[in-house]
Order: sequence, then C-alpha cells, then structure tokens
Amino acid sequence: MGKVYLIGAGPGDPELLTVKAARLLAAADVVLHDSLVSREVLDLISPCAEVLDVGKRAGTKLLTQDEINSLLVANAAKHSIVVRLKGGDPGIFGRAAEEIAALRRAGVAYEMVPGVTAALSAAAAAGISLTDRRIASQVLLSTFSRKSEGSPLDPATDWGSLTPATTLVLYMPGPDYAEVSARLRDAGLPGDLPCVIVSRISSGAQQIRWSSIAALAAGEKLPAPALLIVGRVASQHIAELGESLWERIAPAKLEKTSPSISVI
Amino acid sequence: MGKVYLIGAGPGDPELLTVKAARLLAAADVVLHDSLVSREVLDLISPCAEVLDVGKRAGTKLLTQDEINSLLVANAAKHSIVVRLKGGDPGIFGRAAEEIAALRRAGVAYEMVPGVTAALSAAAAAGISLTDRRIASQVLLSTFSRKSEGSPLDPATDWGSLTPATTLVLYMPGPDYAEVSARLRDAGLPGDLPCVIVSRISSGAQQIRWSSIAALAAGEKLPAPALLIVGRVASQHIAELGESLWERIAPAKLEKTSPSISVI
Repeated sequence: MGKVYLIGAGPGDPELLTVKAARLLAAADVVLHDSLVSREVLDLISPCAEVLDVGKRAGTKLLTQDEINSLLVANAAKHSIVVRLKGGDPGIFGRAAEEIAALRRAGVAYEMVPGVTAALSAAAAAGISLTDRRIASQVLLSTFSRKSEGSPLDPATDWGSLTPATTLVLYMPGPDYAEVSARLRDAGLPGDLPCVIVSRISSGAQQIRWSSIAALAAGEKLPAPALLIVGRVASQHIAELGESLWERIAPAKLEKTSPSISVI
Repeated sequence: MGKVYLIGAGPGDPELLTVKAARLLAAADVVLHDSLVSREVLDLISPCAEVLDVGKRAGTKLLTQDEINSLLVANAAKHSIVVRLKGGDPGIFGRAAEEIAALRRAGVAYEMVPGVTAALSAAAAAGISLTDRRIASQVLLSTFSRKSEGSPLDPATDWGSLTPATTLVLYMPGPDYAEVSARLRDAGLPGDLPCVIVSRISSGAQQIRWSSIAALAAGEKLPAPALLIVGRVASQHIAELGESLWERIAPAKLEKTSPSISVI
C-alpha cells in the first residue's frame, strides 16, 4: 500500500512550487491533477509516472468527486507514491477534505503538502500587502458563489460584516464584473473602495488591473483564472505615494465600526 | 543599484520554501531576516552572503522599522541581490508594505516572492481543509491583537460578524488561552465550536492540540510560535468519521445567518 500526497502546485510558475512538491513530482509513480495546474509544473513530473487529468474544464465534468476518490484509493493499492496535485494550496478551495475522508475510510496513508495559494501570489505580483498594518488588520479569502446550485447560501451576506480593516480576496470572480460590483455594493462596500484584478497569476500572460468597486462594473474583462482583491490595500497609489495616502481613502464611508488599525 | 527581494521563508521546514526562494538565498549578497525564520532555512543562505538578524525577540526591539527600511535601501546601493527574508508569506502579517513604500521612495527595484503562510501549513499538518466545502465557504486570517498599544481597535468586534461557514485563523494567539477563549465567546461563537492549536508548525517540535472554544480556556499551553484554527473544519472527527458528522456539530448554535455551504 502506497501513500497519497495531496500537493499544492502553487499559482502556476514552477519556481513557486515548494521544494518538497518539486521533489515528490520527480519521484511520483502516478499523478492525478486538476486542470488549473500549469503545463510548466506538469513538466516537472517524472517521465516514468502515469499522469491523469481529473480536472473539470468549462463546466464539463470529466470525473465526479466520488470517481476521483476511488481512483486515489485504487492507485494507492498499486503504487508507492501517489500524487494528488491541486492548483494553489490543497486546503484553500481545493476539495481536499472529501478526498481525505475517502482515504481515511479506506485506511490509506496520506499527507498534505501546502502550497502558495493564489491570493498570496496575486498580492506579491501587485506589490501589496494583504494585511498592510496601516490600513488592514485581517484578510478574508472567499469566493463569488452563485445561488443557483441548490445551496441555501445568500451571496450578498455571505461575507459577513466586513470591517473597514478587512481585505477581501475573491477567488474566481467570474466574467460578470457588473454582478460582482453589485454584490460588493450590496454587502455595504463603498463604490470608491479600491480593488485590483490579477489574471493568470504568475504566468507569462499575467495581467494586473487596478480599479474600484464602481469602476469594475464597466471594466474590460481579463482572462480566467483571475482573482479580485478588494480593500484599501488594493490601491495602486498606496505604496507609490507613501504614508499620508491612506488617510485620504474615504475612511468615513467605511466606518460601520471604528477604523481598526492593528498593531501587530 | 541592486534589487531587493522580499521573500517568504514559509513556516520553517526548509522543504516548504519555494524553489525561487531557495535559489535566491543561495545567490544572495546580503540577507536581512526576521527572528521567526528557522535555522534550517538560514542554512540555505550562500556562505558568501552577509546575514543580518533584524527581528524582534520577546518584545526587545533590535531595530526599528525605519532602521530596517534604511538598511534595505543602503544595502541595495552596495549589493546586487538583497534578500529581505520573512517568516511565512511577506504579505500576510509581514510588514512588507512599509518596506515597499521606503524602497519606492528611494527608487530601489524590488520584487515580492510569496511563501507558504502559517495557516496553510498548520491546516496541512492537521489534515484539514480550511474551506471544507461541506461546512465552510471562506477563511478569515486574523490576529489576536491587544488593545493596549494605542490602537482604536476593539478586539471583540474586530473579526466582524463571522458567518457560521467562516473558518477563523488566529496568528500568534499568545499564551493567555483563557483570554482568547473569552474573546471568541464575546464575538458570538459557541463554546462547543471546535478549534485546533498548531505549535512550532512544520518543525520537528510541532504539536497539534484539538480542542473547543470552551475547553481552550483551561488547556495546557503549547510553545510559541503557534496558530489557532477555529471553526467546524477544526474538528478532529470530521475527517475520521466521514460525511455524516458535520450535521451533528451544533449548527443551530451557529445560525446567526443561514448555514452557507458553498458549492464551488
């Protein structure tokens, strides 16, 4: 019986893999990967390994989650090093939990290998700190979920009550920027709150678009996969203009609670 | 004029460095590092490099932030590859923003290299997904800030209104678990909500303690640095017992809003 490694492939750039992930890819007997994993990362897989794309593309389900779970268990019975490779970090929007549950039920040894999640790489690309202590004390990693899939979720309130010092990162906001903008307004955020979209993070085709919640609605669409950072840290001018700026970014409009600048 | 690389050193295990970080450490002319960076990671620095510990230990300030900023600018004038090495990811509670502002003002080229932040490594060590889609739709990375440092922060409300489907990760919760427990109760979280403490993440001395908000108050203290994961995903039994369990974890007590299970 082998071991299953649930590995974060990072944002795409193979240099942003962890050393451990690179080592395990080179030693793997079989690799089951999502479609978000980049070609450059897949090129690091041992040439002797069997490589299976179990991802979903453009809404077309290649395999169900149950089928992926069964494949993992079946491969662990045949191979020593089974790699389950997921974009970013396996524990952030990676569906690792269901696979871990299946592995535990089957008595298969497993290990999670964390990776650089897209939010960190997007912020690095934009040159901003998600928790810039002058204007942010925390960061909420969330998604732009739709209501239509039988979930009781109310997306407009799903983010809770965002404090003025919370940076919101939306994974996979989708192509309907007007709807994203409207949802953010519904959540009580002011139209002039800065945001930044990072498209195809860490790849050669990476694009960064600085905007605001209001301007986002009419903005040009960037190619998926993309990520949206919303909050006072997402101002292109913060780092450029220095320490006096954040006082000018309409804090009054954000003050549902007192502005909380954390001293860490 | 050289370039400054603000690099995330990851949680401590040198295998959890990115490939890029390892490459830059081996090529660096000078490295300015925080005290949280592990000995094993520091061992990867080029033997020819000058190494400066600019961190703060146990409240004793070695250098002010302004002094660190000045050191970065001065070193960029003398060296090609200047590395500013920070534990975890530079954009998450890493004070990168102030250093970036100083570098921009001085016209120094810089690049952020993201790293595996402690929350991801702690979750991987515990074998849980921070966004287990059966019970969580988002994750809030925050800190347990104290009120005593002249900040207008009200720590009890700083987390905003946590939805039942939000996983809360507290960096550096400190040794006063009773106070942490009380603050979490003040924020409206139920005493039987699971939590897990991960101490000395990814090191040989790593410890994992499963608990609940109520039990945390009287729990044995684990060595710093530590991180606290709070939420339904933080139940040791979720992965062990499989898919029926989460319905039994007192969702009623959490239902300030409807339970939101995101379908991603």
